[in-house]
Amino acid sequence: MSIVVQHIDRADPDIIAGLGECGVATVHEAQGRTGLLAAYMNPIWPGAMLAASAVTVSVAPGDNWMIHVAVEQMKEGDIMVVAPTSPCEDGYFGDLLATSILARGGKGLVIDAGVRDVRDLTAMKFPVWSKAVNAQGTVKETRGSVNVPIVCAGALVNPGDVIVADDDGVCVVRREEAETVLAAARKRIAGEEEKRKRLAAGELGLDLYGMRDKLAAKGLRYV
Amino acid sequence: MSIVVQHIDRADPDIIAGLGECGVATVHEAQGRTGLLAAYMNPIWPGAMLAASAVTVSVAPGDNWMIHVAVEQMKEGDIMVVAPTSPCEDGYFGDLLATSILARGGKGLVIDAGVRDVRDLTAMKFPVWSKAVNAQGTVKETRGSVNVPIVCAGALVNPGDVIVADDDGVCVVRREEAETVLAAARKRIAGEEEKRKRLAAGELGLDLYGMRDKLAAKGLRYV
Amino acid sequence: MSIVVQHIDRADPDIIAGLGECGVATVHEAQGRTGLLAAYMNPIWPGAMLAASAVTVSVAPGDNWMIHVAVEQMKEGDIMVVAPTSPCEDGYFGDLLATSILARGGKGLVIDAGVRDVRDLTAMKFPVWSKAVNAQGTVKETRGSVNVPIVCAGALVNPGDVIVADDDGVCVVRREEAETVLAAARKRIAGEEEKRKRLAAGELGLDLYGMRDKLAAKGLRYV
Amino acid sequence: MSIVVQHIDRADPDIIAGLGECGVATVHEAQGRTGLLAAYMNPIWPGAMLAASAVTVSVAPGDNWMIHVAVEQMKEGDIMVVAPTSPCEDGYFGDLLATSILARGGKGLVIDAGVRDVRDLTAMKFPVWSKAVNAQGTVKETRGSVNVPIVCAGALVNPGDVIVADDDGVCVVRREEAETVLAAARKRIAGEEEKRKRLAAGELGLDLYGMRDKLAAKGLRYV
Amino acid sequence: MSIVVQHIDRADPDIIAGLGECGVATVHEAQGRTGLLAAYMNPIWPGAMLAASAVTVSVAPGDNWMIHVAVEQMKEGDIMVVAPTSPCEDGYFGDLLATSILARGGKGLVIDAGVRDVRDLTAMKFPVWSKAVNAQGTVKETRGSVNVPIVCAGALVNPGDVIVADDDGVCVVRREEAETVLAAARKRIAGEEEKRKRLAAGELGLDLYGMRDKLAAKGLRYV
Amino acid sequence: MSIVVQHIDRADPDIIAGLGECGVATVHEAQGRTGLLAAYMNPIWPGAMLAASAVTVSVAPGDNWMIHVAVEQMKEGDIMVVAPTSPCEDGYFGDLLATSILARGGKGLVIDAGVRDVRDLTAMKFPVWSKAVNAQGTVKETRGSVNVPIVCAGALVNPGDVIVADDDGVCVVRREEAETVLAAARKRIAGEEEKRKRLAAGELGLDLYGMRDKLAAKGLRYV
Repeated sequence: MSIVVQHIDRADPDIIAGLGECGVATVHEAQGRTGLLAAYMNPIWPGAMLAASAVTVSVAPGDNWMIHVAVEQMKEGDIMVVAPTSPCEDGYFGDLLATSILARGGKGLVIDAGVRDVRDLTAMKFPVWSKAVNAQGTVKETRGSVNVPIVCAGALVNPGDVIVADDDGVCVVRREEAETVLAAARKRIAGEEEKRKRLAAGELGLDLYGMRDKLAAKGLRYV
Repeated sequence: MSIVVQHIDRADPDIIAGLGECGVATVHEAQGRTGLLAAYMNPIWPGAMLAASAVTVSVAPGDNWMIHVAVEQMKEGDIMVVAPTSPCEDGYFGDLLATSILARGGKGLVIDAGVRDVRDLTAMKFPVWSKAVNAQGTVKETRGSVNVPIVCAGALVNPGDVIVADDDGVCVVRREEAETVLAAARKRIAGEEEKRKRLAAGELGLDLYGMRDKLAAKGLRYV
Repeated sequence: MSIVVQHIDRADPDIIAGLGECGVATVHEAQGRTGLLAAYMNPIWPGAMLAASAVTVSVAPGDNWMIHVAVEQMKEGDIMVVAPTSPCEDGYFGDLLATSILARGGKGLVIDAGVRDVRDLTAMKFPVWSKAVNAQGTVKETRGSVNVPIVCAGALVNPGDVIVADDDGVCVVRREEAETVLAAARKRIAGEEEKRKRLAAGELGLDLYGMRDKLAAKGLRYV
Repeated sequence: MSIVVQHIDRADPDIIAGLGECGVATVHEAQGRTGLLAAYMNPIWPGAMLAASAVTVSVAPGDNWMIHVAVEQMKEGDIMVVAPTSPCEDGYFGDLLATSILARGGKGLVIDAGVRDVRDLTAMKFPVWSKAVNAQGTVKETRGSVNVPIVCAGALVNPGDVIVADDDGVCVVRREEAETVLAAARKRIAGEEEKRKRLAAGELGLDLYGMRDKLAAKGLRYV
Repeated sequence: MSIVVQHIDRADPDIIAGLGECGVATVHEAQGRTGLLAAYMNPIWPGAMLAASAVTVSVAPGDNWMIHVAVEQMKEGDIMVVAPTSPCEDGYFGDLLATSILARGGKGLVIDAGVRDVRDLTAMKFPVWSKAVNAQGTVKETRGSVNVPIVCAGALVNPGDVIVADDDGVCVVRREEAETVLAAARKRIAGEEEKRKRLAAGELGLDLYGMRDKLAAKGLRYV
Repeated sequence: MSIVVQHIDRADPDIIAGLGECGVATVHEAQGRTGLLAAYMNPIWPGAMLAASAVTVSVAPGDNWMIHVAVEQMKEGDIMVVAPTSPCEDGYFGDLLATSILARGGKGLVIDAGVRDVRDLTAMKFPVWSKAVNAQGTVKETRGSVNVPIVCAGALVNPGDVIVADDDGVCVVRREEAETVLAAARKRIAGEEEKRKRLAAGELGLDLYGMRDKLAAKGLRYV
């Protein structure tokens, strides 16, 4: 029930970096509108943006013990992804844990709960996406698991999946699909560039996307 | 059921501009504490502030097709006001649609749902007031209507009504009442300037507004 | 039922200032993880941070009359703490009241309801922690009380208690315990400095806090 | 701003009764999936079901004064529809007001706020659809309006519109469209009876509605 | 920090019983519209109604250990009142604990969290008012306190205060004020009986309460 | 992306029936406090209780097309488990679909969205656990998938997993673990019977579970 998986597979760092350049909305579209975490997951400071490999953590409500265990499992380029076993907005994480993650080469945190020391985390430019900001402290009494599949903010996250996060939220990409998704995302971006120019020049989406006939067929009437 | 009204009346641009200078709280008070949209409507970047003429859009949940239709109906100085037919926080709108609205002379968006591409929209200084930030994509399958009366975030909005929006939220002013409301709002601002000086000098609201007798009559006791 | 208590005891200004330097998370921990207001209490602008002595106000829903009464009771270094008698997110407070509080030497506002004129309050650097930003105006019809014990955002606040507030939220410290809590908070900060250095150098919390044996005893398994 | 409209038009009682027999879901579909109040509007006792003509009331938050004014405007077969000017869950209404409405021939209450005396109201079989059950009392200080258009739980309700309500929620039908909607609703019910039999006999909706080709065309694959 | 207070004062059983007969709404009004717990506190089965003396319990989130401690402190006629130190909806309580409370002469439970075994608790007619129904189990690791003042669902509850609860919610009456509140509540009930008859006979509240002149003075217009 | 898996494995019917007799709370405990769906999933009528094999359905927001597809995949003893791809409370399901499921031998519905026709579903004794009751209709435009792994109300559900549901909520048991979990659940029930008797006889949980020493060691003090 309560285990730490020490060896996990990770996606290629170049693929991860590529996904980060595409951003959440594009990656989400590129994989068929899947993988988003709930919209209540917000960055604690605006402008944060990254892609990284997930180290997953299942914790008890109001208990951050396993986060300490998980730090040891983090490698260069990882992000910690934490979900409580029942809903909780306590402040599981602060600047000391961020310091420790940075010392391991970790890049940030996604947590379906609360964080604190927001002023310090912002000054450190440590990126966090969380459900809440909350000073409420936690205990260290109940074990959980590290690097097992978890449901975080409504999305299934496996250890080693790629996390893409920015001001729009957080998206998870299956490790096995990361390369395919990146290709689709880049294709989408290329297509959007052309559209952006035409729209900026005044062309209408109705014409650009050829929607007028389909709308008329559906019965839309102009009066 | 599903129509696009192509010709709507708009308020005088000078009146609209005047209302924008007054701000949401003052305009709301000037029209008898009416017209506010729900408090969950937040600007996606702080400091956004405008007044504009409403082009209204009724959309299906998770379907942004009619937003493309509505762009064509926008004229210089308009703002798009979107309400889903059932509650939905999907990301109906992003930077491509904003580009298209700007190309038409449009000024911004009010949406009782989600938006995405927040980083880009912020960089473009495109003002949006929304219920959520959410990367979740939408489909284009179900028709709706443009420029019909809608209820957006709890407030009735008619096409051509004036929308005033700032950090405090969003307020709608009936087109027919816009001139009267502007006059009342300016009068209120003039009165506040004098009060601000006296309060800053240390005078108490209790004295400035003559509240002491009325409070005593209501039975307030000092101990 | 409806009274204004004019004479209240306050904590020593140096102790209050000391608590402000420690911040919310540390003070909350130092007093045994107690005293936090609900996590929905957010600063209206990021970076606000203060400690002050509470002047408490009990108000009717949608009625800000007693806030005017309370301003008169504020002294140098006080913060106003407002709770409605039933849940309400109306905009009880704006820039005129802030002007008046500043003229009395007051330092800010904590309100389990809404505020408005956020642009002005931000420009004035007037710190507010609130449940909502909302332009909705209020009436002046129903009396309440000033400087009585209130429950604000789930926490009991007595007049003269110390309020500590920053980006992490709001914490209340009993006036009688303020000195003891400050000592405990300072001790905690001193201890954290050492830990921060060791964690930054790569030492793990598992070792620093001696957790490995206890985790093994609880049955945590590494696989 | 604050008026009582004494003469309003009402729909034909037979049409109202007919809509009540159709129920909320059917009526909502029959008028093109419009007119529903928010899903948080629940009956205070299960099994309540009615249709009636709306007497609308706009009230201040925490203030039930205008409900007393509105009782006088109720006629045989009316239902009171109440919306506060800002969100409020106080208990505006209890058994004494229900007694008074029944004495006027009124049939029930729809309120985007709270009610109390639920045990008594249930014993009286007085039907109420509300946002909350809440004992919190209200004051009588601020005027509002009776029989003006209001937005109640997200839906526009005009005085004299028909309200249909049952365990599924509340739906409003424009008075002018009531006859047409009734015809459409009855047609829908007739069609459903046939479908119910065929489905009960084991026929699949896929076949009954002829969906298989369209699904295949959309790309649905069976594996 | 973590104590069990073994000796507390209780109100007179006859006064407690009297308050129970008056019901929540009346008691709340009789003490000046104070003492209500948040409206989200619902009975798990309809029709539950009681008054009892509070044994208070402060628990950690997701940890029901102290409830076992508190059972021992319960005496004939007591109700257990439980509040977590941070918001939590886990299922702290089920039929075994209810069995134990009944064996001690206890009468029910008020909990600002979740309960489970609702089918059994209903069959036992064990009354519970809770924030949630939730099967989620809890741990027994962290101590708390019994019979200390707590804030439960937004209301301050001291050990020995009287809890009145019914379908309308939960109200707390200070032990020291219980007799006075009962007298006021009974007076209120006597007055309502007369009003109920007059309203049932068709008299209007506008006349019964003499509101017409005050409304006219406030500017209400009939059109 | 959009597939219907036609052949899935199911657990043994006797094991499923056995889990149903144990109930949600016991099964959840027996599998290490895992598998619960969110606490907002409520039965539409009290007393519903069942265990069944999951047919999973992923649907678009506001679109119930795939539910019709899924009915065909249901076999004797199955329950349909539906999750929208973004949060939605529309009324996806009513009495016609229930009729169709019953005709296939299906036993009920779990849906992380809304249902309607509640009066009829209750009369039919068709059990539903849902997030909302809502008459809002849906469209049939967007394909989804049947019998793929889904996240429903925060829990991962695979096709063929066992769903246990009662008044306490909904719990999912992995098909592969069903037999082991049943054995653990039965053992737990056996143990509880003995405890129930001792508690009913007045023995305290403190003694029955031997908690006194551990509490003292943690520092609990009696005063």
